[in-house]
Amino acid sequence: MRQSQLFTKTTKELPKDETSFNARILIKAGFADKLMAGVYSFLPLGWRVIDKIENIIRGEMNNVGGQEILMPSLQPKEIWKDTDIGPEDEKGWGRMREVMYQLKDKLGRDVGFGATHEEVAIELAKKYTHSYKDLPYAFYQFQTKFRQELRPKSGLIRGREFIMKDMYSFHKDAGELDDYYFKVGEAYKKVFDRTGCKSLMVEASGGSFTKNFSHEFQAISESGEDRIAHCDKCDFAQNIEIYKKDEIKKCPKCGGEIVVSKSIETGNIFRFYDKYTKAMGLYFTDEKGEKKPVHLASYGIGVTRLMGAIVEVHHDERGIIWPEEVAPFKAHLIELSGKNNASVRDAAGKLYNDLKKSGIEILYDDRDAGAGEKFADADLIGCPYRVVVSEKTLKENSVEVKKRNQEGAVFIGLEGVVDKLK
Amino acid sequence: MRQSQLFTKTTKELPKDETSFNARILIKAGFADKLMAGVYSFLPLGWRVIDKIENIIRGEMNNVGGQEILMPSLQPKEIWKDTDIGPEDEKGWGRMREVMYQLKDKLGRDVGFGATHEEVAIELAKKYTHSYKDLPYAFYQFQTKFRQELRPKSGLIRGREFIMKDMYSFHKDAGELDDYYFKVGEAYKKVFDRTGCKSLMVEASGGSFTKNFSHEFQAISESGEDRIAHCDKCDFAQNIEIYKKDEIKKCPKCGGEIVVSKSIETGNIFRFYDKYTKAMGLYFTDEKGEKKPVHLASYGIGVTRLMGAIVEVHHDERGIIWPEEVAPFKAHLIELSGKNNASVRDAAGKLYNDLKKSGIEILYDDRDAGAGEKFADADLIGCPYRVVVSEKTLKENSVEVKKRNQEGAVFIGLEGVVDKLK
Repeated sequence: MRQSQLFTKTTKELPKDETSFNARILIKAGFADKLMAGVYSFLPLGWRVIDKIENIIRGEMNNVGGQEILMPSLQPKEIWKDTDIGPEDEKGWGRMREVMYQLKDKLGRDVGFGATHEEVAIELAKKYTHSYKDLPYAFYQFQTKFRQELRPKSGLIRGREFIMKDMYSFHKDAGELDDYYFKVGEAYKKVFDRTGCKSLMVEASGGSFTKNFSHEFQAISESGEDRIAHCDKCDFAQNIEIYKKDEIKKCPKCGGEIVVSKSIETGNIFRFYDKYTKAMGLYFTDEKGEKKPVHLASYGIGVTRLMGAIVEVHHDERGIIWPEEVAPFKAHLIELSGKNNASVRDAAGKLYNDLKKSGIEILYDDRDAGAGEKFADADLIGCPYRVVVSEKTLKENSVEVKKRNQEGAVFIGLEGVVDKLK
Repeated sequence: MRQSQLFTKTTKELPKDETSFNARILIKAGFADKLMAGVYSFLPLGWRVIDKIENIIRGEMNNVGGQEILMPSLQPKEIWKDTDIGPEDEKGWGRMREVMYQLKDKLGRDVGFGATHEEVAIELAKKYTHSYKDLPYAFYQFQTKFRQELRPKSGLIRGREFIMKDMYSFHKDAGELDDYYFKVGEAYKKVFDRTGCKSLMVEASGGSFTKNFSHEFQAISESGEDRIAHCDKCDFAQNIEIYKKDEIKKCPKCGGEIVVSKSIETGNIFRFYDKYTKAMGLYFTDEKGEKKPVHLASYGIGVTRLMGAIVEVHHDERGIIWPEEVAPFKAHLIELSGKNNASVRDAAGKLYNDLKKSGIEILYDDRDAGAGEKFADADLIGCPYRVVVSEKTLKENSVEVKKRNQEGAVFIGLEGVVDKLK
């Protein structure tokens, strides 16, 4: 895309009430805009990143047999009546009032805007689940969720409105559920590896109704709100809330040292077993003709949160350093045409078209601006490769290529650029 | 996809309160589910159709230079204060109460859930529009909108929650706006042609502040809520609300006969010129250094509404007849293996893999069910091609291919199926 056509620009005017690093740098670089506390627009560059994150998640969820759907955001109060169970339970319409936007509509009926979708998912599953032959299955969606965060201070990490991928899987028993649950855990690890936000699968409390752990995915970051105790050698990790430091002195898996780190939660997975399904009446008939409760697990990744986490982990003092699979463009082509040097302009334009034709995603800085401004913008926006065409490089019939995450540039002949970036 | 894996099924259990044809047939065929009045889930088959509709729209919007973004659904009351102007105006927080879900959040602040986004779009544009050099541009989004419809009776045609593509374009003056507006009108016609929901560009009232028309796109359908007066020969068309039947007896463009038809609104485009931009303070500096108001037009297509309109237009007594570009799958491969005939099963499985490898989207009915049920489901679901593999067809080393929108089938050699469907 030609940068002169992009309606957004990098900016120095940041919202005064925005304190989080991730939101500030994303606004500064033109990826996001803030409408109100915890509520952001995603602009062309940011939307490209979100699209890539979603496609990575989509691919991995499809690989474990997930079927993509979209459930409604609007929810009637009635579907919540049966899950308001147990004093330690955080569900139910009354308890959800703390986080869910709820109102009486014009007809006087209670409706809410989805903060989570277990109840809707179970209602949907009831329509299609009758026999053991209908199980197992899993469906997922990408959806905008709404949560009344009192003081959203962490930018995209904890918004009032955010995009979430939530998946729900349905099983005949706890054993089948456990197997699938860990399979999805592996898929989650792949998602976080591919997005460049490597996360540990961390044991956390499973709630009041199971001794089994739930799991959070946590990316180690100094800016994180969470704290985890984890082995410095293997993948053992527990949320500090459940970690018993007096009992566990060494890693129970490998004997390594336990260290405590700050971290950002990038995802979580949860085994409900038959708790909500029993309460809401989701049963099936097994091979022997007996009525059994369906077992449910759910799996969440905050998509916009993940974008925030990525920039918390990948940046330097000059700007963002996008991991390649989620970068808005693979390369930033910079034309330094000085006083409108036609040969530079022509060479850069030709290279842009060649790269586009080869399927390489390019942001082409064709603006009438100086080298300093263009380089600063390229570093701030953070595409993995910077390709410079100038009078100087053209004398050698070449371009200057620099990786965003490395110092030092190399010169490559004009003919070789497409191959280099493929 | 293997139909045995699909978690949804065709169903005869329809919600008692659902009277609209489009919602009933989409629920029956397993494309949608109803959670409450005017609020639907989109299931794997339905989500595939929506994805295709969105990609068609995305391509055409990109062709006219639109830049994809996502604005928030949550909106603060403050951004509405300046557009509550004029007695005939339907905007402004107070007037929007009739359609917008509004509430006071936990902090006592008024927030609403977006029913339309002109105000948010203008707030965003203010951040990036300063000089004539910044103009023109257009951005669009696919977003879930919320509207308090009192009695939603038209299924997906008028929901309380629905997906909309809304685009906003910003211009230096009315002339430039008019040119772009009609260019987008042409792009809209392409969208509706490609989705198989051919729509007339119909003149409608431009509101209280302009003598120029706005335009609706209307697909002629007996089930439509709207009525249009249109020429039986050319493309002249007016909404019945503005049509002056005493003055316009013959088509003013070609002299043809004027007929009145029922129709479904599939999209609308609107020229606000400088009305809201002036009110909200969106100005730019022109070439002479003078401050001028930016001119705004907006363009909407209801994506889920369009899915509803398509099935209203394309169906018969047996089910849906999807136009090819929006069909969930190009072909429905049906294996009639009788009492588990292994050679039929193997041949169908092989053909399924071959078709998939060739990039042809196939729904493969590998279920253990009878021919009657499989044919009825195929007609109900409505993929453009039905391909049958049975003992009978295999004797001739062939398959039976039938188009959903034609009577009569042809036999094609197994080797030729991929080419036939490509």
